[in-house]
Amino acid sequence: MNKYNTLKTVSGGICAAKGFKASGVYCGIKRPANDTPETKHKNDICLFASDAECNTAAVYTQNKVKGAPLLVTKANLEKSGGKSIAVIVNSKNANTCNADGVEKAQMMCDLVAEEMNIQSEKVLVASTGVIGQVLPIEPIEKAVPILVNNLDYGKNEEAASAIMTTDTVKKEYAVEFNIDGCTCTLGGMAKGSGMIHPNMATTLNFITTDCAVSSEILQKALSEIVKVTYNCLSIDGDTSTNDMVVLMANSLACNKEIQSVDEPAYQVFKEALFEVMANLTRMLAKDGEGASKLLECVCSGADSKDKAIVIAKSVICSTLFKAAMFGEDANWGRVLCAIGYADAEFDINKVDVALSSEYGTIEVCKNGSGVEFSEETAAEILKSDEIEIHVNLNEGNFDATAWGCDLTYDYVKINGDYRT
Amino acid sequence: MNKYNTLKTVSGGICAAKGFKASGVYCGIKRPANDTPETKHKNDICLFASDAECNTAAVYTQNKVKGAPLLVTKANLEKSGGKSIAVIVNSKNANTCNADGVEKAQMMCDLVAEEMNIQSEKVLVASTGVIGQVLPIEPIEKAVPILVNNLDYGKNEEAASAIMTTDTVKKEYAVEFNIDGCTCTLGGMAKGSGMIHPNMATTLNFITTDCAVSSEILQKALSEIVKVTYNCLSIDGDTSTNDMVVLMANSLACNKEIQSVDEPAYQVFKEALFEVMANLTRMLAKDGEGASKLLECVCSGADSKDKAIVIAKSVICSTLFKAAMFGEDANWGRVLCAIGYADAEFDINKVDVALSSEYGTIEVCKNGSGVEFSEETAAEILKSDEIEIHVNLNEGNFDATAWGCDLTYDYVKINGDYRT
Repeated sequence: MNKYNTLKTVSGGICAAKGFKASGVYCGIKRPANDTPETKHKNDICLFASDAECNTAAVYTQNKVKGAPLLVTKANLEKSGGKSIAVIVNSKNANTCNADGVEKAQMMCDLVAEEMNIQSEKVLVASTGVIGQVLPIEPIEKAVPILVNNLDYGKNEEAASAIMTTDTVKKEYAVEFNIDGCTCTLGGMAKGSGMIHPNMATTLNFITTDCAVSSEILQKALSEIVKVTYNCLSIDGDTSTNDMVVLMANSLACNKEIQSVDEPAYQVFKEALFEVMANLTRMLAKDGEGASKLLECVCSGADSKDKAIVIAKSVICSTLFKAAMFGEDANWGRVLCAIGYADAEFDINKVDVALSSEYGTIEVCKNGSGVEFSEETAAEILKSDEIEIHVNLNEGNFDATAWGCDLTYDYVKINGDYRT
Repeated sequence: MNKYNTLKTVSGGICAAKGFKASGVYCGIKRPANDTPETKHKNDICLFASDAECNTAAVYTQNKVKGAPLLVTKANLEKSGGKSIAVIVNSKNANTCNADGVEKAQMMCDLVAEEMNIQSEKVLVASTGVIGQVLPIEPIEKAVPILVNNLDYGKNEEAASAIMTTDTVKKEYAVEFNIDGCTCTLGGMAKGSGMIHPNMATTLNFITTDCAVSSEILQKALSEIVKVTYNCLSIDGDTSTNDMVVLMANSLACNKEIQSVDEPAYQVFKEALFEVMANLTRMLAKDGEGASKLLECVCSGADSKDKAIVIAKSVICSTLFKAAMFGEDANWGRVLCAIGYADAEFDINKVDVALSSEYGTIEVCKNGSGVEFSEETAAEILKSDEIEIHVNLNEGNFDATAWGCDLTYDYVKINGDYRT
């Protein structure tokens, strides 16, 4: 059911594009109580870097509580005029709501800068994990020389695993595209999987490309695509304090730098960026905390893009509908209810709703009222682990998609005891 | 920990005030598959009526999908000039999103009007249950004569049980107060317990009083108190299609009719109304679907009432915080996160947070940063089934309270398979 795979995919995640190296290790930011020297641990810190300085775009959470790493990353990009070379990221601790948060985040950049012999403002930093616990800097001090020493082109998975928290799978996607007869590559990695509700960026997302794009155009493309991908994703309605997307372009492909939205090359680049971000968004939704099903709500027939987005998101965010999908119960009244409280004007008496999966499609509501349908067919369709909800407002030509997941016992279990 | 019990409480719910009768029966609106003649069924329909015509105020859901009963109730009150005598209510079927919904709701009023020999526009109607299933009128036709025949002063519990859906307890509260040396009584009943998120009214709520109050003042008091009680309640963020509060005043107490907000009697009446509605709100929160704990968030130190409400509600609505409370985990970072995405302006660096219950109080955050606290003490406090979260913005003198409950396995279980 994935419609977002028109370009040639390649392996390599954030190392897919030319000139990007990565590394990741376990340094013990949060050492489990039952730890022994023999214990095998998931990576909890990573570094990635470009052989050439990158034009860099970024988007940050709209939460008023902002993680210290975001403040430092933002300040560094301002100082460097939007240029970056390396990014350091840790999991297990968000370094947020701590009195010494900014100081520690700055130290992380300084440590990398010194070891790599580059300017500190060209190092960006991100953290994810528990909010409000002091970040121990000692394990990071020990890890940085190892991370720098281990940097290599094929180590994207070391980094992708280091940024995982409650994620059950690594999230990477990369594509090739052609500009001016020159092959460009764009790839990324992301982490979920709870505290996810747009307003921007949703968790940590890093995208690298060798395509030459001016800083201004890079930021424009990123902001535009974030709106229809990450910002259309919701796992639990909680907008995180540490959400960030960073997009780095090192110009090592041979194309002429894209400098205007009017160039045909811009559309090609934007399509590649959309495809990578849409796929990472789907992966985030499917691996939402405790999720057993990916939910995709397509709202069509709207008289504006914004309205289509608002309505698709409202359905995806409905706790009741999410629980019904977990139970494989075609309780479409909850879709209507969620459409009804969306902040948008439309005629509810024109609304059609259908549910579909690879097992078929069933119309459940026509002109705002229920239609007879076979519960057996509905049950069959809802057995799938990827469900599409189609909402047609029948009043215009705009559409949008929002992504989410079902609400399960495991979500409650995971979040009833997250800190231990 | 209940602070809303300053007035003398009395028994009787909606029959506590003079001249109000009720009755309730099981009529088989949704006959379970495993039904046998021996099966004892919970009441699914009720009627209540006043001996004298009532001034009547009402507030309805802001969901654009409105249940047919709301449309009919609203139209009837317009036709009758805000007068009512009787209310008929069924559970098990919301009569919403059905092509024949309005017709059926109107038939329910007509049936009661004919049997009681009153005007149909003085009968109000409400329904709660599954959305989008055609309401069977036959069992209701058979039930109405029985309901009318059985009407009596002490039968409030028959009605309170008839409006329950997934509620585990009946919700009734009534108080006495004194105006002009005359004893007045005001009481109500409510049903929960899922699809609850303000924007008004939250579920079905009926309040009756013998106090003489003009229609205009009645509506004013109701709208004002709804804002700080039911509209500060959230179980799951889903605003129902059938939410309604009806307040009926039959003037059978001896007081002079309250006609202005400047009369001292108005404040006395409003206090009684607040106390009944605040207590029903607490009961709804505590009996939220699957809930094991009542959560009360008190936001103080705000520079406006609206801001205090927005912030208290944001905390109560956080899925992640609700799950943490179920797990009795003092994960206060999620409180800060929820404050941070509330739609309000304030300085996060001034915010203090404390958690309390009957087992004690613990400060977890000061000036926006974590403070050291004993996890053992926190665990002890969170064992309670009533938790208070105190958020102080330290920038003004307004406060507000919002009510909710924890997110549990049982919420998922109940809502994964609601229709069967």
